[in-house]
Formats: sequence, structure tokens, C-alpha cells
Amino acid sequence: MSSKPLDYENLNENVKSCQYAVRGELYLRASELQKEGKKIIFTNVGNPHALGQKPLTFPRQVIALCQAPFLLDDPNAELVFPNDAIERAKQYLAMTSGGLGAYSDSRGIPGVRKEVADFIERRDGYPSDAELIFLTDGASKGVAQILNTIIRNPNDGILVPVPQYPLYSATISLLGGSLVPYYLEENSNWGLDINDLHRSVSEARSKGLTIRAMVIINPGNPTGQCLSEANLKDVLRFCYQENLVLLADEVYQQNVYQDERPFISAKKVLLNMGPPISREVQLVSFHTVSKGYFGECGQRGGYFEMTNIPPKTVEEIYKIASISLSPNVPGQIFLGLMVNPPKAGDISYAQFVRESKGILESLRRRARIMTDGFNRCRNVVCNFTEGAMYSFPQVCLPRRAIEAAKILGKAPDVFYCLKLLEATGISTVPGSGFGQKEGVFHLRTTILPAEEDMPSIMASFKEFNDKFMDHYEDHKGYSRIIAIML
Amino acid sequence: MSSKPLDYENLNENVKSCQYAVRGELYLRASELQKEGKKIIFTNVGNPHALGQKPLTFPRQVIALCQAPFLLDDPNAELVFPNDAIERAKQYLAMTSGGLGAYSDSRGIPGVRKEVADFIERRDGYPSDAELIFLTDGASKGVAQILNTIIRNPNDGILVPVPQYPLYSATISLLGGSLVPYYLEENSNWGLDINDLHRSVSEARSKGLTIRAMVIINPGNPTGQCLSEANLKDVLRFCYQENLVLLADEVYQQNVYQDERPFISAKKVLLNMGPPISREVQLVSFHTVSKGYFGECGQRGGYFEMTNIPPKTVEEIYKIASISLSPNVPGQIFLGLMVNPPKAGDISYAQFVRESKGILESLRRRARIMTDGFNRCRNVVCNFTEGAMYSFPQVCLPRRAIEAAKILGKAPDVFYCLKLLEATGISTVPGSGFGQKEGVFHLRTTILPAEEDMPSIMASFKEFNDKFMDHYEDHKGYSRIIAIML
Repeated sequence: MSSKPLDYENLNENVKSCQYAVRGELYLRASELQKEGKKIIFTNVGNPHALGQKPLTFPRQVIALCQAPFLLDDPNAELVFPNDAIERAKQYLAMTSGGLGAYSDSRGIPGVRKEVADFIERRDGYPSDAELIFLTDGASKGVAQILNTIIRNPNDGILVPVPQYPLYSATISLLGGSLVPYYLEENSNWGLDINDLHRSVSEARSKGLTIRAMVIINPGNPTGQCLSEANLKDVLRFCYQENLVLLADEVYQQNVYQDERPFISAKKVLLNMGPPISREVQLVSFHTVSKGYFGECGQRGGYFEMTNIPPKTVEEIYKIASISLSPNVPGQIFLGLMVNPPKAGDISYAQFVRESKGILESLRRRARIMTDGFNRCRNVVCNFTEGAMYSFPQVCLPRRAIEAAKILGKAPDVFYCLKLLEATGISTVPGSGFGQKEGVFHLRTTILPAEEDMPSIMASFKEFNDKFMDHYEDHKGYSRIIAIML
Repeated sequence: MSSKPLDYENLNENVKSCQYAVRGELYLRASELQKEGKKIIFTNVGNPHALGQKPLTFPRQVIALCQAPFLLDDPNAELVFPNDAIERAKQYLAMTSGGLGAYSDSRGIPGVRKEVADFIERRDGYPSDAELIFLTDGASKGVAQILNTIIRNPNDGILVPVPQYPLYSATISLLGGSLVPYYLEENSNWGLDINDLHRSVSEARSKGLTIRAMVIINPGNPTGQCLSEANLKDVLRFCYQENLVLLADEVYQQNVYQDERPFISAKKVLLNMGPPISREVQLVSFHTVSKGYFGECGQRGGYFEMTNIPPKTVEEIYKIASISLSPNVPGQIFLGLMVNPPKAGDISYAQFVRESKGILESLRRRARIMTDGFNRCRNVVCNFTEGAMYSFPQVCLPRRAIEAAKILGKAPDVFYCLKLLEATGISTVPGSGFGQKEGVFHLRTTILPAEEDMPSIMASFKEFNDKFMDHYEDHKGYSRIIAIML
């Protein structure tokens, strides 16, 4: 028989061309090593609970009760659950029609969408309409749905920051669109240069592309920067001039580690700007329960909010959401709990604050330990992680290391990260998975290993790195100059 | 400013062309009426808990404990949870790395995939490999992923039964492929006619299409039939001859209501056939926690199993799954509980059997009440629901009703279903949403309303229908003949 429909050569080319390095070669090798008994520190993906972060107690109590509604009538339940969790579970169950086992409306439970709208209103100081908020199985699914609505053919271009979180490159590839890169400036703490944006757009247009949308990731992934209000105004003005939808990936909005650089939402800046821009620029903003201090990745809860999107388009997006019936209902309730946590006076308030503050403060300290640790290593420089969950150090690789990688047919940063993995068990993602300027190499780690493990992880990284540099720098100091010259 | 990227006229045409009637015009109108205070009986979607089906106790106990792992150390937990649920929760947590809040491997938790493989082995009597089983957020997501891997361009055709569950038409449309219909025969209890299949394929090929895959839904949705082993053999032989992947939607495999027509899986029949067919035909089979006696729609758990799919293709499918990181973890555990329920001797066994049997036996009685009810109505005929969760009666509409619909710009069955909704609150899906032969009209209802409500629902249907017929049959009996003649 000739070749079959699901043989590799006959698959959809867009499927084959996708790359998703966060779970790519490095992750697969790490999984193999783990099977062979090696201890692996998975810092390839922002997955806090996998590295020991404990779930917040109150949300888990509420969801456990929602899953076991028969406990709500059991007097013994009060021995193991606080009263406010019991009350809250009853409220959520009353919002559903049939509890957690029933499909909700495809946009999500109306009551939870209202909680999200109230949260956005409190955050931004502007009204938010629950009808324009759709709940999703994590933010990734929302991003994919919106990109699917936008991308019509290979001539549709989407502006994406480089380095970027590869969800964007992979999804654009899968949908058959074109990624148009704009570069973040490592030397200005991964800031966004509006001139570079203009250059990217004219270059892409000269190739016949229609630029349809622009993605920002704020706080940045993998780069960790928080965009300033001035920077966001530039971006919105740019979107207005160039007639682009702005996709604002704001999943790390609670992960901010410098008081002088607070998170500010694209929606708030948009509305601050007033008409015509505030009424004209189409904006979709994304959020999740997977990050922040919840870190509930496995529950897959998220939302997107649409601003200035016409009702007929909202209807189309609703129709497409309907095909997969409904986002998972427990994830929706986690989202409700995230945007509407216990309040002062509630029984569980003190514990909730203690737990969530504890996580955020520890992340802040870990961001510092990690950045400092990288900056103490030879040939490594690293911007401070202002936000999000990642460090993205630049590693200046000696010429001989680059040559050794070439012989193995590997990208130099992949080569370095594989050696790091084999030597230390630290599983990272090479910078080439996110995009980087030609000849410059990075890696991404999360800042998520347990705080008490952090010093030894950084020591083991330093030991590996310095040995690696010893090995590949034939004439110390000298080779670096050659590498730079080459 | 000119029109903007997310204005309706600028959207992806594949998005606009999708239709998904299960949550289409009828559902939207029903939701409006509900808001206005009308009591609506939602029989548009197979959503058992929304119509009062209680969740099974044991799986909910296990999942509640997995969500609240701090209870596992609480001595009071034994007052509200049985010991086998506590043990099972510990087992599942040990299978994860970080509990329910951590992303799992993108294919699902290895331990749960092993439980699924064991279940398939017991069911079919043939080995099943956990490496070829991927867990998904419900079956729909799995179907979409596989179709995305198959469909390359508008010339790729997918054979789909008509009437069909519109997940298939909508997803094929969204992915830019071509649906090639084959008709199920209402007069032979919705059986599949292999000659019609050949005709469909040659017709499609003459239009330049490449047929790549064939979908079967067994038990049928909306048609309720169970395919016989002989019928499945024909299908597999056909796929072998025509070089097609078989996609076997088997989500209703536990919903079977006639002992003489048991469910038999496509995988089992394939392996029964022996080589070369058993080694050559590529098969992907789908299952879910949303149907059966679990009916846990809101939890979004499912799997697909791949047979005769080459490793390089499996890797590509894994890569695409990675982009959305992982299916929701609680849904994965529900799947594990479904395929590996309590066993004889376990504390919770008796209760589990009582509850699950109770649900299935009641569904069997409801299938009978509903079919009989429809067959007692004027101008309505209905095949018996052998399996799945739906009745799909044919309604012979009088000429004047068809004309009245035309004046309103509605399909005749949409017109009928809207009138039914306004009069009775029964929310159904018109047959045109599933596809039907020209000039023949149907509607789909689930058999899910509570058993005790069923007689009054059928009485209210009959009252509406007979009045409708009175109203539109100008000269009773006579007009029907005219309608048939026209």
C-alpha cells in the first residue's frame, strides 16, 4: 500500500512547521534522564506547583466543596471546612445550572464573568462589561481563538516581540499566518523601541504582508520587564496609526517585583488616552489562574476581555467558542476566586493574605537571588527580573563551544543547555526557542525552584558554567575577544 | 478610520462560515426567553447534570480530596470521606508532580494513560499501548487536533455521516477542509449503506477532492443507532481499499439500551480482522467523561487512542498538544476514575454500582418513553434510540407550514422548533443543524429530562404538535398528500 494519510509526509505542513521549545528537545531529554533516575529540576516551564509551591488553602476548599456538593448537607463538613468556604461554594453552585458536571454557557458562567468585570473595574477605574469577557481553558486557548479569528492567509502578519513566548510563533505557524518580529532591547532592560516597530512594519509591508495585530507580553516572558505607561501609550498610538488590533498578554500582572515599576493594564492606558484612540483601538487582553500567586496551571482557567470589538464579531467569537461547548467549569471557579478573593473580616482572610503574600515575597527574593547568581558567572549577564517568572541571562559562548555545537548539528545555546542539563539536572530552554539577535545566546529559567534550594542550584549552575568556559576557552580571555571578533 | 482588523468584514472567512446549531439560533432564543422568566427545558445538548442527573459520589469524593490534599492529613476527613476514596486520592496525587495545580505532561498523566490502556485491553481483548493514548479536554478537543493534523487545504475531504453531530462540519469548516457527506438510512434504522459510501467518494473525487479520512459516530449522534460488527467490518475494509484514516467517535459507548445491539469498538473489529487490514488501517478512537453514566460534561476530560499511526506522526501530535501545555488535570483524573471504577470488595463498590446502574436503567426507560411519545404524535415518526442520548424524530410538515417558514426566511424545521420552544419551553435542535435529505425534516432532543418529568414533557409536545398540525393542515389529511406531491 502507498503512503497513508497520517504518515509523516502527508500531514498538514502547518503542523509540521510549528516549533514549541518550552517542551522541545531539552524537555524531552530531561524526561528521558528522569526516567533513568537522574534528579531533574524542571525550570523550563512556569509551573509553580511542580516545584513545590503549595496551593492556596481557601480556593481549594471552595472547589473541593463544589466538587462534593453532598458535603454541604453534612454537619461533619464544618469540622474540616471553614464557614466562609462553605458559603462561597454554595454561591458558586447557585451560579451554575447543574454544578461542576454541567457544561456552562460557552462564554463561561455569567456570575463568574461578572466577578471578572468587577475586578477589572476596581483595577483600572473604568467600567468593564461582563458580556465582553469570555472564560477560557487557560490563556493559551484564548490567544489561539483570537488569532484564529484574525489570521486569514499567509499574508496576514502579526507583530510579536522577540524574544517572545513561543505560544505566539507556534500558534501563528499552525494557523498559517506570518510572524513579524520586533526586537526588545536587552541593553535598555528589554524595553520596546517604537522606531524599531515602525521599521518592522515597513519591512513586512514591502514583502506584501498586511499587518493585522500586535502582541505585547507585559510583564515580559521570557524577558521579565514591566512596560511603563509612556511605553504603552506609544504602543497604542502606533496601533491607532497603523490600524492594528492590540493583543495584550497580561498573565503575569500579579508577578511584579519592583515597587517603582508597577503593572498597568493596556485597557487602562487606552481609556486614559481618551478619544479618538480610546474609542478606536481594538484591544483583547488575556489573563489566567496559572500564574500570579495562584499558580494553578493544571486547572486551566483564564479569560479574555474585548474592548472596541463590534457586536457582530463578538457573536462570531461566541459561535466558535460554542463548538467546544464550554471551558472546564472548575477552572472557571478558580478564576472567580482569583479575581474575588476573601475580604477583610472573612474567616479565611488572614490565612489567604499570609499565604499569597508569602508566595509573592518569596518570588521577589528568588528573582534577586537568581539574577545575582547569573551575574556572578563568567561570560553571563542578566537583566533583573522586574516581573513574570523568568530569568533570561545572556551567555557569551566561546568560539570553540560554537564550533563544537556546529559539529553536532546543534544551535550553540541548545548545546550549552544540554551540557547544563546532563551536568546538573537543571532543565532550561535555549534562547533560540524564543528568538534572539543573530550571534547572541541566552537561556530561560523560571525563578520557581523552592527558595531554600535556590543557593545550591545557582552554585551548581556556576560550577558547571565556569568549567564549561574553562574547557572551551582555549586561551582564557583571548578566545572571548576572538569570538567577539568573528 | 477605515474598517478595522476585527470588524466583521475582515475576519477569517473560515470562522464566519462555521455553523454550530447545537448552540445556534434555537439556543440563543431559549436563553433570551429564560432571561424573561420562561421555564426552559434545555434538551438541545447532551448535558445530563444540567437536567438534574446527580454526580456519582465516589469520583467526586476522590477529586474533592485531590483538590484539598491538606485533608489527607486531617483525622476528621474520615468522618466525611470513605477510606477507599482517601486511598485513591493519594494514588492519583502520587501520579502527578505537584498535584492538580501543576501542568501534567502534554499527553496527560502517565499513570492515568496506563489506566486507560488497561481499560481498552479489558474491553477489546487486545493489548493497548499507553504511549499511543493522549488525554484531552473532552473529546471535541481531540477530534479538532486530529482533523487539524489531517487537513492541509480545501481539497482534502473528510467523509462524515449525515445526519452528523455538527462538531465535525464546524471543525472541518474552521480548518478549511471539505466535508464529504454519506447518508445514513432512516428507513433501515439509520444504518450505514456501503454502496452509498462508494458513491459519495467517487462523486467527491470527480470534483477533485482527495478523501483523507472517514468519521463514524457509534453509537450515533443524533441518530442513536449502534453499528453491528458486520457493518464495522465493511467500514474498515472500505477504509483499507480507499486508503482512509478512520476516526471513531465512540463517546456514547456506555450508553446502549438494547441488549441485542451491544457496543463494539472499531479497534476490536480492526484487530479481529487480522492482517493485512489490522496492520494497515490507521485508526483514531475518541472517548470522554461527559457521557455514559458519569455525564461529567463540565469537567472536560477525554482521550484518543491511535492505532497504526507511525511514531513520527505521534511525535508531531505530541508537539501540537504541547503548545497548550496540558489538558486540565482534574478532568484527567475523572477519566482515570471512569475507566477504573471501584471494584467488588471496595467500600464504595455497592454505592457506585447502585448509582451508575440507576442512571443507565433510567436512560433506557426514558429512551422508550420518548420514542413512544413521538410516535404517538401526528405526522411524527421516530426510530428507537438504541444508544447515545438523543431522539431524532422526523416531522412531516404541512405545505402551509413550509410556506409560512419561507415567508419568515427560516428553514421549515427551524420554524417548527421555534414555535415548539415558544409554546412549551422545550429547547431542541432543528434537523437542518445535523444535515438531512432534501425536503425531510427532523428535530433532535436529548433523552435527558428527569424520568418523572418525561410524561408531562411528551404530553406538552404532543399538544403543541397536534395543534400545529391542525393549524397548518388546511384540509386535514389532504394537505399532507399535497406536501408529499410538491
